[in-house]
Amino acid sequence: MRSNIVVFTIRKFIPYLITILLLVLLYNVYRQWLSNLQFPTIIVITPTHKRLERLADMTRLAQTLSHVKNLHWIVIEDANHTVEAVQRILDRSGLPYVYFFTTTENGFPKRGWSHRNQGLLYVRKNYKNYNRPGVVYFADDDNSYDIRLFDKYIRKVKTIGIWAVGLSGGALVEAPRVVNRTIVAWDVVYAPGREFAIDMAGFAINLQSILNSNASFHRGCVKQVPETCFLRQFNIPKEKIEPFGYDDEPKEILVWHTKTRSTIAKGERHGYVVE
Amino acid sequence: MRSNIVVFTIRKFIPYLITILLLVLLYNVYRQWLSNLQFPTIIVITPTHKRLERLADMTRLAQTLSHVKNLHWIVIEDANHTVEAVQRILDRSGLPYVYFFTTTENGFPKRGWSHRNQGLLYVRKNYKNYNRPGVVYFADDDNSYDIRLFDKYIRKVKTIGIWAVGLSGGALVEAPRVVNRTIVAWDVVYAPGREFAIDMAGFAINLQSILNSNASFHRGCVKQVPETCFLRQFNIPKEKIEPFGYDDEPKEILVWHTKTRSTIAKGERHGYVVE
Repeated sequence: MRSNIVVFTIRKFIPYLITILLLVLLYNVYRQWLSNLQFPTIIVITPTHKRLERLADMTRLAQTLSHVKNLHWIVIEDANHTVEAVQRILDRSGLPYVYFFTTTENGFPKRGWSHRNQGLLYVRKNYKNYNRPGVVYFADDDNSYDIRLFDKYIRKVKTIGIWAVGLSGGALVEAPRVVNRTIVAWDVVYAPGREFAIDMAGFAINLQSILNSNASFHRGCVKQVPETCFLRQFNIPKEKIEPFGYDDEPKEILVWHTKTRSTIAKGERHGYVVE
Repeated sequence: MRSNIVVFTIRKFIPYLITILLLVLLYNVYRQWLSNLQFPTIIVITPTHKRLERLADMTRLAQTLSHVKNLHWIVIEDANHTVEAVQRILDRSGLPYVYFFTTTENGFPKRGWSHRNQGLLYVRKNYKNYNRPGVVYFADDDNSYDIRLFDKYIRKVKTIGIWAVGLSGGALVEAPRVVNRTIVAWDVVYAPGREFAIDMAGFAINLQSILNSNASFHRGCVKQVPETCFLRQFNIPKEKIEPFGYDDEPKEILVWHTKTRSTIAKGERHGYVVE
């Protein structure tokens, strides 16, 4: 019967078909592996300190960052110990993270500087032989982040990338002024003459640039604006700084320098974890 | 040859195997469909209004809620128009939502009351014949939500559920005091004598209870505390109110009544969307 012949012919080809399917599968796995190798890791450095709103802020930030693929989180406690409730937030985030503590060095501004420096030390030590590209970003725990910031801006930074920040420096918007894809000035309210008039939330730096430099928030920066002092140490000419978002349509802000209003809270803990 | 017999025997069983596999698959699809029907929908009502920090707050809230399964979001603008930038946030959230506007009725407190009432009207009209269980929750856009709040507490509410809120009413924690699984008093700083001494973020109500009542933030509530006035209208005895989280170990707070500090921002928009 004719149908028998057809069935026989199809049967004969099954081993070839299976082989081809397996090869296609293998090729796709290989391509995925290659593209993963080339997909930059975002390394986020977050200083944090005890205050009544901290667990709320860290909870929100962890839940925001957990939307982002291939993100490593370095969290540095401003204390001489880590805090269990923070550790639990980090565990729940599902993100790869490290959490350690340091106190402020003598003669340094009270918060963040020593902690960001420790974060940079950690990066330079542990990512020295990292086999994937990466970008380093400083993210304070009370700011507000649109998750598009990470994939649209940060992950694409090849040297130093800069973008607009909302509600920073007493301004509605602090932004680089861009002409022909080049930053020519700063659209800011506070100290427009700064060499890098941008908030800590407004820039990210490629891992290679971090590894090739010793840039830090060092003692010599203490009487300067920290962002400018830090960014100058990379010796990257203004023309090589990459502006983001200036040509978006609509021009949206993807990060805001917010602060959670501090509460004058009284009363008992009633057994609840508040820190 | 013996091996030929084995191959033949296996071949004979293939149609039966395929049939069994298909039946198992169908059964699982049916079970999934049944369990989906029984999985309560969380209906979140959020009043929002124009202010400098609003897009930051709404961005964070949208990104938080987008972690939660089977959540419907009702957002009510305090204005006589909706706002494009808010609409875009809602679109990006990937959540099923409705977004409409209303202004405050004459003689009503300035914010939220009329908007929550419109949200309740929407629920009573559109979920009347809803074929799944549901729970209604009021979520302001500047509070901080641990996503466990939704699955551990809200989704389980059968009548009215109540839990601790951080940083509310001038207290570190506002919480129900629970003895033998029953709320006997309120561990709060502000007005402990209130019948329901709990923040708007500290309770949720089963959809059936909403549909069986006309409870609202009505004119008669204006000189009262809104939460107490609203909750009394359900005529649900205190013993039937379900406390959550009081026996957790550790006792964690899953929602905080936070406010984003308002900024006195100056300067231009420089073409960026700030509202």
